[in-house]
Amino acid sequence: MAAAAASRFLRLAPRRLPSPKRSSPLAALSLPQLAPLSTTPGRRRFCAAAQASAPATAAAGVAGEAVGEFRKRLRVADVKGGEDEGAACVGKELAVRGWVRTCRAQRTVTFVEVNDGSCLSNMQCVLTPDTEGYDQIDSITTGASVLVEGVVASSQGGKQKVELKVSKITVIGKSDPTSFPIQKKRASREFLRTVAHLRPRTNTFGAVARVRNALAYATHKFFQDNGFVWVSSPIITASDCEGAGEQFYVTTLISNSGEGGCLVNDIPATKDGRVDWSQDFFCKPAFLTVSGQLNGETYASALSDIYTFGPTFRAENSNTARHLAEFWMIEPELAFADLNDDMACATAYLQYVVKYILENCKEDMDFFNTWVDKGIIDRLNDVVEKNFIHLSYSDAVELLLGSKKNFEFPVKWGLDLQSEHERYITEVAFGGRPVIIRDYPKEIKAFYMRQNDDGKTVAAMDLLVPRVGELIGGSQREERLDHLEARLDEQNLNKDSYWWYLDLRRYGSVPHAGFGLGFERLVQFVTGIDNIRDVIPFPRVPGSAEF
Amino acid sequence: MAAAAASRFLRLAPRRLPSPKRSSPLAALSLPQLAPLSTTPGRRRFCAAAQASAPATAAAGVAGEAVGEFRKRLRVADVKGGEDEGAACVGKELAVRGWVRTCRAQRTVTFVEVNDGSCLSNMQCVLTPDTEGYDQIDSITTGASVLVEGVVASSQGGKQKVELKVSKITVIGKSDPTSFPIQKKRASREFLRTVAHLRPRTNTFGAVARVRNALAYATHKFFQDNGFVWVSSPIITASDCEGAGEQFYVTTLISNSGEGGCLVNDIPATKDGRVDWSQDFFCKPAFLTVSGQLNGETYASALSDIYTFGPTFRAENSNTARHLAEFWMIEPELAFADLNDDMACATAYLQYVVKYILENCKEDMDFFNTWVDKGIIDRLNDVVEKNFIHLSYSDAVELLLGSKKNFEFPVKWGLDLQSEHERYITEVAFGGRPVIIRDYPKEIKAFYMRQNDDGKTVAAMDLLVPRVGELIGGSQREERLDHLEARLDEQNLNKDSYWWYLDLRRYGSVPHAGFGLGFERLVQFVTGIDNIRDVIPFPRVPGSAEF
Repeated sequence: MAAAAASRFLRLAPRRLPSPKRSSPLAALSLPQLAPLSTTPGRRRFCAAAQASAPATAAAGVAGEAVGEFRKRLRVADVKGGEDEGAACVGKELAVRGWVRTCRAQRTVTFVEVNDGSCLSNMQCVLTPDTEGYDQIDSITTGASVLVEGVVASSQGGKQKVELKVSKITVIGKSDPTSFPIQKKRASREFLRTVAHLRPRTNTFGAVARVRNALAYATHKFFQDNGFVWVSSPIITASDCEGAGEQFYVTTLISNSGEGGCLVNDIPATKDGRVDWSQDFFCKPAFLTVSGQLNGETYASALSDIYTFGPTFRAENSNTARHLAEFWMIEPELAFADLNDDMACATAYLQYVVKYILENCKEDMDFFNTWVDKGIIDRLNDVVEKNFIHLSYSDAVELLLGSKKNFEFPVKWGLDLQSEHERYITEVAFGGRPVIIRDYPKEIKAFYMRQNDDGKTVAAMDLLVPRVGELIGGSQREERLDHLEARLDEQNLNKDSYWWYLDLRRYGSVPHAGFGLGFERLVQFVTGIDNIRDVIPFPRVPGSAEF
Repeated sequence: MAAAAASRFLRLAPRRLPSPKRSSPLAALSLPQLAPLSTTPGRRRFCAAAQASAPATAAAGVAGEAVGEFRKRLRVADVKGGEDEGAACVGKELAVRGWVRTCRAQRTVTFVEVNDGSCLSNMQCVLTPDTEGYDQIDSITTGASVLVEGVVASSQGGKQKVELKVSKITVIGKSDPTSFPIQKKRASREFLRTVAHLRPRTNTFGAVARVRNALAYATHKFFQDNGFVWVSSPIITASDCEGAGEQFYVTTLISNSGEGGCLVNDIPATKDGRVDWSQDFFCKPAFLTVSGQLNGETYASALSDIYTFGPTFRAENSNTARHLAEFWMIEPELAFADLNDDMACATAYLQYVVKYILENCKEDMDFFNTWVDKGIIDRLNDVVEKNFIHLSYSDAVELLLGSKKNFEFPVKWGLDLQSEHERYITEVAFGGRPVIIRDYPKEIKAFYMRQNDDGKTVAAMDLLVPRVGELIGGSQREERLDHLEARLDEQNLNKDSYWWYLDLRRYGSVPHAGFGLGFERLVQFVTGIDNIRDVIPFPRVPGSAEF
């Protein structure tokens, strides 16, 4: 096994003709940048120098050795991911490390599909009885890890352009075929949740992981390119700022380390029998954050444009396909901005990340389009290409009332819009176009949203998309101290605990706006996966924090 | 105030001669890409189309309006950040929004320094009694937010190349000069922690925020460019996997919502008076994670190369300048990799992000080099340019013993290295060169590290840098099921609770390795800031979870 690990790079060199460029045999293949630091002359020089000169010797006479050069691993995606699907590699010698998906023995040859997770495609490996290591054929079962070495050849089968004629196969780690939980047959997503540590080895969850990763990176790229600063808002907070109530407590007052578990009577109490928070880690009750927005506003009031991207939590007992107790949120905050800027930013952001996925995750998106949600690529293309529409809440209510449609929930000015209403607006009324509803009644929105001049509504906005409904919610924030204090009073919130939030309105207050986006909802929207538990690696829901 | 918010873009156009390119007056200035979506023809077409055509009308006859175009805000950094420090903008009309740092009245002119957080530099604004809005001069105090409009001119002062001759100034939000906590005089960092919501408006904390942001983005870039997939490891976990003990409990069993606080007797208990975890949210004890590594290994065993970047927690009662209860960790995991690959990756990563900061945060780094930690730029250049050295723990012990230096803590094979030892090795023995110590005694390292053939050591590594000591810790992981089970037994850990971790060794196990890096330690290393509480926006430490 040690030998198999000795070099993690695919060996890839012309087989018969020694390349004149022996020192960089990969360059000839025009594969994507293999050694990303090769553009860093300093580092290259170091490597050369380290080989040429004697290793550094410390004062005390003990010699150290130079650390070797790091190179990007050559992946199956690098070979098969290009426009030519690997045709340029035909004739090249190659080594692939990965996990066996299937092994099909035919009369004279055996086909082994090997996947390394870099893309949906497997490398089809063709073995014959002459292949070195063929005697281990019984160990080449689904789930086993292997090292295969051979020559790339044009494939006879229609499913792929190239395959690997294997000269040698080595089993790295076996996989007992009778107990390996993910067999060839289709496993249900419900079952796969019980083996969340193995499910990324399936096509669906591998693709979800890659698209999720690409969405996260595109998010960073969009905001960084636009001059936003990433701010890590705190996870543990002592201020119950959203007044949500449904928060997790974070504490060290209880412990399970003793024999038999924690005695309730051992929990520190005050004289009148109440939990003594002064003895807790933070000397007061502390919670897991439900939103980084208020903290984000403090940094927007100094750096102008910021965004958060971190985990948030709800201790809500919702066992639905749309709720998680732990999920990731993206919350940009724009200074010197009003609701129009906010809507423009949300629109540009969504179009950017969706376009990024369509361009950079083609194979995975084709998979989702075929197997998970037919038509999703068309729907996403609409998002990128169609102009987004905004209309006021009042107009939306008028539209719904005028539709003569029988909704389950009542439609009336002052009531919140339900999912069925939102979906009707975006899917039917505007024919699949994303729609932003703005200027909601202040009674159904949070205290920090800016009051409009009509005295009845606030500068809030919800961005609705087909099938999902609300994807993004945002608002212009109330920057006027007197208005904000009045709203806190109206909602019976304790002004003292918002002292620092109010300070932002006392000292150099500026018009500002922002929005929030549940990252898992975005992954659902882009992949078409129904259940939110299947778009996060290890979902946390009532009754389950496994793995 | 509404007017000031109406457009958040710096107006920037030739003053006297109407530009022939009126539709894109900014292009002539060769400023950095102002409308990042301009390369996206689809989006541009939409904007044109939206203006040309009538707004979309829904089925029910309610019309929506097209959402406006989002454009990158033109920032002070865009004007002054280039090589010419703004010289190319001389003569241009410009509007700046930001916060007043200082206001100095001289006989005929008043200088107002305005900062928008995009860079360390202020825009020096020159007012005369003729300036429109000059009657508001009493409100132009430190901390106030303003909109200044004027023409860029060469500056007479030596401190900057350009300044703004102001034609009009508007106070957006006042700042009471007697109560604004951050006055012109230097405030101590201890004091600034008590106003963490305002401290990003200072030079030091603005620079820390920008460098922290750049380090985070460089981290993503490095791993993404090398084909790693970002995996969000769970924050809440029911497995006490590191056996660390110092974990926070996450619970809904206690609550503070009732009148007067939570009664201890209201906490659900079993018949024998113990906390009844079956009634908790997750139906068992749950904690905040101390590391995402074990979860990361599951994804590396499917996608080959992954990294986590998320918050981790320690309920350690350490009131030091080096400890936080909540901090961010970066944990890459490489499949088909051994300790040499791991060292190479850690080295390449560190050199990449440090180089990125030196190249992209020049002004902020000059500030740190001058005001916070003289010589830090030289030290960081060493990290980028010098080759890293590795030596075994045994050689390191020999080196320390041979140094004849009187250390406070004993040096003996089998004892862990202390900070003084680590700093001696990297600072003195190898003259400021980063050093990796590898192959530590297995007794002082975690159960999951791969045993070396000598039976005494494990394939662990610690990367040491001058001044900070250990910055990165990593290891090759034990991929052999029997060895891993034996180690769990040796350390009296419950094998059953590691069933899924052991499964990775049962089904297609591969040699793999990874490392962990405390992100705040990295920010300290790069900025030279002494106290870790000053490199995270809202530090959480014993007794404090403010803001």
